[in-house]
Amino acid sequence: MDELVTQIAAARRRAVARAITQMEEGGDSARQLLARLREHIAAIGAPVHVIGLTGPPGAGKSSLSDQLISRLRALGKRVAVLAVDPSSPFTGGAVLGDRVRMNRHATDPSVFIRSMGTRGDSGGLAKPVRDAVTVLTAAAFDVILIETVGVGQSELDVMFVADTVAVVLTPAGGDHIQTAKAGIMEIGDVFVVNKSDLQGAGRTAKDIQDMLRVRNDRAQPADEAGEWSVPVLLTSALAQEGTDQLWEALYGHFEHLVQTKQLAWRRGRGRVREMQELLGRKVADEVERRWQNDALWQDLQSRVQSDRLSVVEAVDMAVQNLLKD
Amino acid sequence: MDELVTQIAAARRRAVARAITQMEEGGDSARQLLARLREHIAAIGAPVHVIGLTGPPGAGKSSLSDQLISRLRALGKRVAVLAVDPSSPFTGGAVLGDRVRMNRHATDPSVFIRSMGTRGDSGGLAKPVRDAVTVLTAAAFDVILIETVGVGQSELDVMFVADTVAVVLTPAGGDHIQTAKAGIMEIGDVFVVNKSDLQGAGRTAKDIQDMLRVRNDRAQPADEAGEWSVPVLLTSALAQEGTDQLWEALYGHFEHLVQTKQLAWRRGRGRVREMQELLGRKVADEVERRWQNDALWQDLQSRVQSDRLSVVEAVDMAVQNLLKD
Repeated sequence: MDELVTQIAAARRRAVARAITQMEEGGDSARQLLARLREHIAAIGAPVHVIGLTGPPGAGKSSLSDQLISRLRALGKRVAVLAVDPSSPFTGGAVLGDRVRMNRHATDPSVFIRSMGTRGDSGGLAKPVRDAVTVLTAAAFDVILIETVGVGQSELDVMFVADTVAVVLTPAGGDHIQTAKAGIMEIGDVFVVNKSDLQGAGRTAKDIQDMLRVRNDRAQPADEAGEWSVPVLLTSALAQEGTDQLWEALYGHFEHLVQTKQLAWRRGRGRVREMQELLGRKVADEVERRWQNDALWQDLQSRVQSDRLSVVEAVDMAVQNLLKD
Repeated sequence: MDELVTQIAAARRRAVARAITQMEEGGDSARQLLARLREHIAAIGAPVHVIGLTGPPGAGKSSLSDQLISRLRALGKRVAVLAVDPSSPFTGGAVLGDRVRMNRHATDPSVFIRSMGTRGDSGGLAKPVRDAVTVLTAAAFDVILIETVGVGQSELDVMFVADTVAVVLTPAGGDHIQTAKAGIMEIGDVFVVNKSDLQGAGRTAKDIQDMLRVRNDRAQPADEAGEWSVPVLLTSALAQEGTDQLWEALYGHFEHLVQTKQLAWRRGRGRVREMQELLGRKVADEVERRWQNDALWQDLQSRVQSDRLSVVEAVDMAVQNLLKD
């Protein structure tokens, strides 16, 4: 374990990859490793910036992160990318291997790219991703990009781990803005209209700005200096336009968090939201399990089905059986 | 109470209205009245057909039910309409009074029209609507139309009360089909493309048929005779077209339930679904209440916020505190 921590601290690629696999698998050794890595991080005080890129499939998130890597490398920064796909099983980084190999940055020793899937339980993806971020932080990456494949609840959960969330949309998706899960519009710190060479980009940006104006903004410190004005940017991966401005916006948000001393608060808020999501899902699973398997609950269903028991009474009895006072 | 039951059985309008108001208010006297009405219903064996009309606002559900009333009156049937709006408070039938007065059937003694709102608690609207259906059944109406204003979860719940659910869409809403809550596409026994004089009606009908082909159909008796083939109809309230076919389809579904002896099963399934929805909501409310008010849960949040406790441990402790084994 000492050896592994030392190698991670030295940013040895294979050690980092192995540690992330341990985080995916969980268990005692992962927990112990995490504790050691946290000590190391506290010692080095690494000021990592964790950025989440989310948005509908086909919005061009991969191209965008590829371009961000180039920009960050030009600034001398070390970059890690976690590509998160809740619909894939945990891979040990294998499935996206092709993509990783094809990536022009794959041979750059200051770039680390890794895919993460799910074990299919309801524990959520936020925890393994959060733990992978701890590994990468210990390996002293300057920027960690978390890129999701879709926009389901799991992807939203993963965004709880990010300091800065960029929501990537496209002009073609004029109706994305309506159909995108309401949640996605609530969590962006920066909005990106990618593929801005397509028709309607300006209109889409305006629609987003309109939505932001009415967005129920998340609890923030009340004083005005603490408020972040959410930018809406146009980018084109094809024309390679807008990446510099995107990076400025992302980093601007991070600087804002640091300067207003909101970074720790923000990270804590992410953990609290993850906790609430996870609890909600565990309780829903337990309710589902009892409907399926519990003899008492099966009996309630059958009596309600045949009208020997009222819905309201059955619900009261199920609640009694389920909840502590 | 005897007097009230007698007057309801005689379909005296004021007695029916008063009883429905009691159902909205709930409580012991409502419960006693319900029991008495059920005895009466068992005695008369009234073969009422409860029809739900749901769909997005502006789909023309009110015009459609107005036309259905005409058709049913021509067939000599007595009709009751419950117009359900979860966004309105319980009204005693007052708020939609204007609509009722303007309705050309309002003075027809064989037609009863009544609005129902919500008390704003999380008990759902299905129960008061179900109880109002019991009142109207005791008053020997032949057909009860339940018409909802929107397509939120409350409206879907209300549909658990119906024997036959008609989902009303419009061609203009080509994207309604995408954006309509997934749930609404799952519950229709009959689909209606209303305002079929507008462009794209045929296309919309075809889209619905495609969706039905892949619809995860609800548990049904496995034998083939028991399967109902969901029709997709075109109607135009403006051109007064399609109402006869719509009534045939709605009644055809009811006859199907009766002939295949599925009516009791169907009504039981509705109650079981209502129970599951209601329980889910009660539990979610209780979880929310503890996050807001419970000292232990507040402490968990604060320790997670400041990173003195991990998300996973906090969730375990909250589950321990919440759920009985």
